[in-house]
Amino acid sequence: MNGNGIERVGRIQLRVHDFEQSVDYYSNILGLDVTGQDDNRVYLKAWDEWDHHSVILEKSDYSGMDHIAFKVTNHDVLDKLERKIEQFGCDVKRVSNQSRLGEGEAIRFILPTGHTFELYHEIDYVGVPTGRLNPHPWPDGLRGIAPHRLDHALLAGDDVDTTMRLFTEILGFVQTERVVSVDSEQLIASFLSTSMTGHDIAFIKGPNAKLHHVGFYLGNWYEVLKAADILARNGIEIEVTPTRHGITRGETIYFFDPSGNRNEVCTGGYAVYSDFPTITWTEDKLGQGIFYHRRQLNETFSSVFS
Amino acid sequence: MNGNGIERVGRIQLRVHDFEQSVDYYSNILGLDVTGQDDNRVYLKAWDEWDHHSVILEKSDYSGMDHIAFKVTNHDVLDKLERKIEQFGCDVKRVSNQSRLGEGEAIRFILPTGHTFELYHEIDYVGVPTGRLNPHPWPDGLRGIAPHRLDHALLAGDDVDTTMRLFTEILGFVQTERVVSVDSEQLIASFLSTSMTGHDIAFIKGPNAKLHHVGFYLGNWYEVLKAADILARNGIEIEVTPTRHGITRGETIYFFDPSGNRNEVCTGGYAVYSDFPTITWTEDKLGQGIFYHRRQLNETFSSVFS
Amino acid sequence: MNGNGIERVGRIQLRVHDFEQSVDYYSNILGLDVTGQDDNRVYLKAWDEWDHHSVILEKSDYSGMDHIAFKVTNHDVLDKLERKIEQFGCDVKRVSNQSRLGEGEAIRFILPTGHTFELYHEIDYVGVPTGRLNPHPWPDGLRGIAPHRLDHALLAGDDVDTTMRLFTEILGFVQTERVVSVDSEQLIASFLSTSMTGHDIAFIKGPNAKLHHVGFYLGNWYEVLKAADILARNGIEIEVTPTRHGITRGETIYFFDPSGNRNEVCTGGYAVYSDFPTITWTEDKLGQGIFYHRRQLNETFSSVFS
Amino acid sequence: MNGNGIERVGRIQLRVHDFEQSVDYYSNILGLDVTGQDDNRVYLKAWDEWDHHSVILEKSDYSGMDHIAFKVTNHDVLDKLERKIEQFGCDVKRVSNQSRLGEGEAIRFILPTGHTFELYHEIDYVGVPTGRLNPHPWPDGLRGIAPHRLDHALLAGDDVDTTMRLFTEILGFVQTERVVSVDSEQLIASFLSTSMTGHDIAFIKGPNAKLHHVGFYLGNWYEVLKAADILARNGIEIEVTPTRHGITRGETIYFFDPSGNRNEVCTGGYAVYSDFPTITWTEDKLGQGIFYHRRQLNETFSSVFS
Repeated sequence: MNGNGIERVGRIQLRVHDFEQSVDYYSNILGLDVTGQDDNRVYLKAWDEWDHHSVILEKSDYSGMDHIAFKVTNHDVLDKLERKIEQFGCDVKRVSNQSRLGEGEAIRFILPTGHTFELYHEIDYVGVPTGRLNPHPWPDGLRGIAPHRLDHALLAGDDVDTTMRLFTEILGFVQTERVVSVDSEQLIASFLSTSMTGHDIAFIKGPNAKLHHVGFYLGNWYEVLKAADILARNGIEIEVTPTRHGITRGETIYFFDPSGNRNEVCTGGYAVYSDFPTITWTEDKLGQGIFYHRRQLNETFSSVFS
Repeated sequence: MNGNGIERVGRIQLRVHDFEQSVDYYSNILGLDVTGQDDNRVYLKAWDEWDHHSVILEKSDYSGMDHIAFKVTNHDVLDKLERKIEQFGCDVKRVSNQSRLGEGEAIRFILPTGHTFELYHEIDYVGVPTGRLNPHPWPDGLRGIAPHRLDHALLAGDDVDTTMRLFTEILGFVQTERVVSVDSEQLIASFLSTSMTGHDIAFIKGPNAKLHHVGFYLGNWYEVLKAADILARNGIEIEVTPTRHGITRGETIYFFDPSGNRNEVCTGGYAVYSDFPTITWTEDKLGQGIFYHRRQLNETFSSVFS
Repeated sequence: MNGNGIERVGRIQLRVHDFEQSVDYYSNILGLDVTGQDDNRVYLKAWDEWDHHSVILEKSDYSGMDHIAFKVTNHDVLDKLERKIEQFGCDVKRVSNQSRLGEGEAIRFILPTGHTFELYHEIDYVGVPTGRLNPHPWPDGLRGIAPHRLDHALLAGDDVDTTMRLFTEILGFVQTERVVSVDSEQLIASFLSTSMTGHDIAFIKGPNAKLHHVGFYLGNWYEVLKAADILARNGIEIEVTPTRHGITRGETIYFFDPSGNRNEVCTGGYAVYSDFPTITWTEDKLGQGIFYHRRQLNETFSSVFS
Repeated sequence: MNGNGIERVGRIQLRVHDFEQSVDYYSNILGLDVTGQDDNRVYLKAWDEWDHHSVILEKSDYSGMDHIAFKVTNHDVLDKLERKIEQFGCDVKRVSNQSRLGEGEAIRFILPTGHTFELYHEIDYVGVPTGRLNPHPWPDGLRGIAPHRLDHALLAGDDVDTTMRLFTEILGFVQTERVVSVDSEQLIASFLSTSMTGHDIAFIKGPNAKLHHVGFYLGNWYEVLKAADILARNGIEIEVTPTRHGITRGETIYFFDPSGNRNEVCTGGYAVYSDFPTITWTEDKLGQGIFYHRRQLNETFSSVFS
């Protein structure tokens, strides 16, 4: 967590229009576990997460992200941050207890980039299949890609600058990396960490309120290969085949869920602490910042959002 | 960092009696970079650390650990923790600015296990060889094992219980895993994290004020194999050949520096947050907790400290 | 194959006294596929082998190896080699068609080390689960360790010298590596290849007609780790945890089937051709030749045979 | 080797127009060792090859392949194959001893696809840096990508059918995989092995006498990542970033030398023997046959030859 009590990216709610196909994809191909469902939502978690869910799929006519939420260390943090966020200029609302399955109260506000953002502390504890007593290192019976956990999301919007300030000044995130125009005057992308990983959330200049991708964590470069093999076997298009990022150094692949929400599974990277010295990429090197091996963006990666 | 402002394990000062041979070992075989030296000390850092040093080798007639120190997020944390630590019952001293190369002021106290422990904020910034502008993912010219960073230390002492309480209640660490007697009445070992890794420091019941090992972080299981190959090529005894821990799930090897201080290089493990549900190992399963594959301790591992 | 028409190690028949437990072990933990059974034998193959079987388990009051057999490139090779082997001094018998399930005729003789050895060409074709038309790179539904194929066996006996001459001069194998006494006068172990791998069969000085181990091939060092994890989870003792061989450079683990026959799963190594320059290990370096990281033999590895 | 005495792909002579830059590239970035040079040629070998050279760079105004040569098991094989090749309809010439550095006599003929092909037995022995007595598993001081050995070449030409027959019927190669038109009437590509790997040489329908790529062998998927990192760091374009082939199952990257000759480094794959059951790909699945993850060819890969 960071010094303001924000712990980690806790959940993302995705809109999916092919609901049954999407549930099948997220549970059998990506390999998350279904932990509950209500009217128009299914709740899932990765095998190495102990909270009730980290992904919510919502039946919708559209694709995209309904909201993203970060867990805070205790309930008082909500009160404290509520005031600071309002002072920063965002209108904050309370989401009441049990508005969604297994969840306690949350605070909700709109980011300068147009995304709905929540903070919460309470959520039901489910635990991991390996248990807490003399556990084995990994569970039997994993299905599909089986990422260890939700890792991060990259969101698009126009006002990356103000959003970056909200996250660093009010929410206490560290800006680990940033992309700037060659003259350094414009912030094009900002990578923000509240944990020890390269980014828990990131923002890139683009159409407001859009999702670029949601990322899940894998254990190593061989798991990245296996993930790509599983997608190929299942006929799922891999937008970006195994490669390394310059930004965050991570090893990665990108692909789409049945509704066109971009997914990433990734591993690697460096250790982040609150004194991490921000790394700067200039726009002329953005290609190798994103795809270190190919050193250029592909067309869909720059233009497709959900 | 944790909620009390403690960031990470910042440095360990090791006593070595074969001074020149030890400097050669730590710089050429383990593969740290020498960043400075004074009268009877040499300062080193791993390639992916940006502070001035994380390891200090001190010329001595003995082996063992002089002290271990954690970095805090700002100078005020020192004042605040100083009072709390004294209230807990430890006598706290100030270590003045520049007592060691590149270091600012620190506070120093003795743990219930007899080890000298410091907290500090100021230390010179050196940076990493890949730089902060459009960096490559890893530097040219690495030597030897070349771990990415100092990772943790395991210390022995009698009063593990009180020490665990000091770390969790006063210093804000999370107890990720613990080993207890079969009747659960005695705490035999405690693993404590202030970051997102399985442990930044750990304590095991044993002779007071002793070092069991200092651990450095590698990127993956192939780097563990390469590390073992490098040690074997250089005729350095590997106490524990490549294996997995049950505790922390890490992949690992153990070996000794020329003065008999045990080193580990390791990778893997899970993500820790402040709500991590402590994992319990019962003493009858300690063998597989420590060495998941062999499922028994070897003689030296249980009995040799420095 | 080699210039005398010997293709590969085709099968090994192992004696097991805990028959049902052994079938369960070989099919669910080691992860071979059962392809047939008759009175007191079960036939198995690894997933990436296309012949009917590579392992036969035989119900017995003893453990050990009944025989090992190499496949030759065509039936005429049997006639040609039969004469040469008899000239070398071994009594050769014909094993008639269908003596075992799926097998054609074989020739059988006793090696100078006392082991029963067969050569054959005909065996039923079963194929691999990925098929021969636009195949995926690996099949769904693998169980347990799931090695790709039978790789080699190490046999013990007294007369390693004559056996090595039989394999190199008559059968056309390449001696890739050998262990000799420090004065070079005695051959202690000989590694023999008829393919492109470090050894298809090897002999070590020891009690006659004994099996040291049978080895199966894995794809990489991560699969070695996973194999060790699977054994540990199933409570199966791992005699040698993940390490590297000096001899063959392979990455490996050793363990036992329920009847005490030693198994190995391994990967890595170099490419062998008929002009491979034999590598020599002197007995004083045998420890690092066998276990490159530990650089000494463990007690059971030197003394336990089946 | 195969039953006709052909051992392995022994050498490839490449034409390069940027001679000094090419020598620098092949020795420092690809990481081969220079073993000799004469008037307009430089000779190189990979670290784990013991013959004098496997790659010859020839100063030229053009790029492309001068010839490819396979080593046979003894000198008599040359005489025997010379007759058979002539009977097949190729004109065979003798290349005299020492026409090139370190080489003995060779026979030379033109393949139906227009490529110059040689067979030879004699070549100077150089050995590997790890030696033949109690060797370490890998040498110190490797530079660049440092593949273990020359692995294969893919050549383009019109008459793939006749060439395939020459290799299987006369030269004794196994056709491991083939690509056919959807109606199965036309052979589009043929993969041919004389060792235990998926292909030592392969042919694809295209412009006559052209080189598609020369492939070198790496040890594992992490070495593939490192190779791509090294190329990116050195500003060398990677045509195909890390991925898996459907054909051969190999893990791979493609890139170009300074003269535009395509290089591959690859690992993985299955074991080939003379009874390997040929795998068939239909042209409609060629995309996933070549690039299993992307499932479509990229434009340059299909059209650029040298």
